[in-house]
Amino acid sequence: MTPFTANPSQAVSAYGERRLITEIRRWLGPASPPAPFGIGDDCAVLPPTRRHQLVTTDPVIYGQHFDQHVAPRAVGAKLLKRNLSDIAAMGGRPSAAVVSLALAPETNLAWLRSFYRGLAACALKYQVKIVGGDITQGPTGFFGAFLTLHGEATGQRVVTRAGAQRGDRIYVTGKLGGSLLGHHYNFSPRLAEGAWLAKRPEVCAMMDVSDGLAQDLNALTPADLAPALCATAIPISPAARQRASRTKKSGLFHALSDGEDYELLIVVRARANAAQFARAWHRRFPQTKLSLVGHFVRPAEFPPAALRLEDYRGYEHLR
Amino acid sequence: MTPFTANPSQAVSAYGERRLITEIRRWLGPASPPAPFGIGDDCAVLPPTRRHQLVTTDPVIYGQHFDQHVAPRAVGAKLLKRNLSDIAAMGGRPSAAVVSLALAPETNLAWLRSFYRGLAACALKYQVKIVGGDITQGPTGFFGAFLTLHGEATGQRVVTRAGAQRGDRIYVTGKLGGSLLGHHYNFSPRLAEGAWLAKRPEVCAMMDVSDGLAQDLNALTPADLAPALCATAIPISPAARQRASRTKKSGLFHALSDGEDYELLIVVRARANAAQFARAWHRRFPQTKLSLVGHFVRPAEFPPAALRLEDYRGYEHLR
Repeated sequence: MTPFTANPSQAVSAYGERRLITEIRRWLGPASPPAPFGIGDDCAVLPPTRRHQLVTTDPVIYGQHFDQHVAPRAVGAKLLKRNLSDIAAMGGRPSAAVVSLALAPETNLAWLRSFYRGLAACALKYQVKIVGGDITQGPTGFFGAFLTLHGEATGQRVVTRAGAQRGDRIYVTGKLGGSLLGHHYNFSPRLAEGAWLAKRPEVCAMMDVSDGLAQDLNALTPADLAPALCATAIPISPAARQRASRTKKSGLFHALSDGEDYELLIVVRARANAAQFARAWHRRFPQTKLSLVGHFVRPAEFPPAALRLEDYRGYEHLR
Repeated sequence: MTPFTANPSQAVSAYGERRLITEIRRWLGPASPPAPFGIGDDCAVLPPTRRHQLVTTDPVIYGQHFDQHVAPRAVGAKLLKRNLSDIAAMGGRPSAAVVSLALAPETNLAWLRSFYRGLAACALKYQVKIVGGDITQGPTGFFGAFLTLHGEATGQRVVTRAGAQRGDRIYVTGKLGGSLLGHHYNFSPRLAEGAWLAKRPEVCAMMDVSDGLAQDLNALTPADLAPALCATAIPISPAARQRASRTKKSGLFHALSDGEDYELLIVVRARANAAQFARAWHRRFPQTKLSLVGHFVRPAEFPPAALRLEDYRGYEHLR
């Protein structure tokens, strides 16, 4: 199902902007608080906070982040979950979001309703309020929803991407690759895991994997170091192997370069007790795999058998 | 100048996403603080606040909010100013923004640089930090920039759209209409005015005029009341008269329905001293016109000579 309809009576243009906003508030239901704390005024009002606040923004665009094979409810949920994954990667807790829509006049009302129902269900699940937004007409065939998510630290600190040192160990949650087969919308952002990791003093840097491990790891790597990863330690998902059976690449290639994994990539101090860290993780998250995949070295120390990540480049937009 | 180029070497696709992000940080210069308080991590980090926070989101889209006749610097400034006008309308002070871009691969790098230079200059002027964003590929011919702006109350309260009562007076700042002739990008958001008005106890509701006074006033009007406006009191801009000389409409029509005025629409308590309020305004803002345009009445009391606003409907998206 595409977001569009050839029948003008079923299109958003049959409503116009104001009636559409009324409908959207109805579709969002309890996920949309009353004004001024929600939709309906010039700005949304958020209460003061004692802790550091987090802000992130990611869209879903038809043809880029989803196609006609993804159900509209799943698209709405994906819009929020992409952003939740960023909050998780700083060890934060989400609170409120605004959504700016750009849509073609022929956008299907039924599709849009399901999209918002999916967004609302996901917002309720993760205790996010949808507090505002905007609707603008876009060109024919265009659907884009741009969400900005707010959150705050769950404890004393937020975990940034900076902080790795020589010898520090690199971990990743879950299994990687093959997200195109369904994981790219059918995933759970690692919020509980991120908040737990932010409380562990041995965790010194963190990010989420959105463009593929081979690509994203660059952002955690200090300029004078290199990541030395062991190929056999990479957690390859069944979907990555399934993809590999159709492409001429390996499961490992797909695990490192597919992207949209929405797993956490974690740096742990070299001096920390790795066995103790692993035990604590498995007590708290017995269902979720945590893999020690490598460590940071000086370029001169690079182990000959370690992975050459430049051979596994992730997806880059605009290329 | 359109945002696009036929020469691939001058297009954003010649850079790819990562180099483009590096360039954007350079273009933004001091308007972009270092991570984690700015671009470069999973989320931007904002300091805690004691006061209520404000959040608003508005885009600029090629073909909707600007065309090839508007200079790219002015487009960048407009993106921020549209949102600043919403902060002004609550009596707030702006602080930080994130920008999500969706752009065609053939987007012209030189155009985009000027766009960001204009955004940065405007951000510095209004003390807004650009703290994060996202870049996603859009379809051919598409350029959209979606900004979410944060701010906070300047005093004890924020002024919402709710609160008008029977007899309360309706004021508007500046002059209205004809924004298409240049005002739609060449305006100054009424931040100082909004903050001053929020401190006046007689001001009980406020919003900015973006879809035209005739349309926007609905949002300030309680369900059991009607706005009674006097036609001769409406401040008609020279541009509205200029437009009227080319259309078959009146200057008044354009003043009430053109939209994109970015003026403040203010409700003042009936019992307040109107002369004192006007004097205080003119002492503080001697250059800025403030017009008393009408008051709220019960429908049964509607003065026969008052304006029938339904004859002056503003622009509606998606219609």
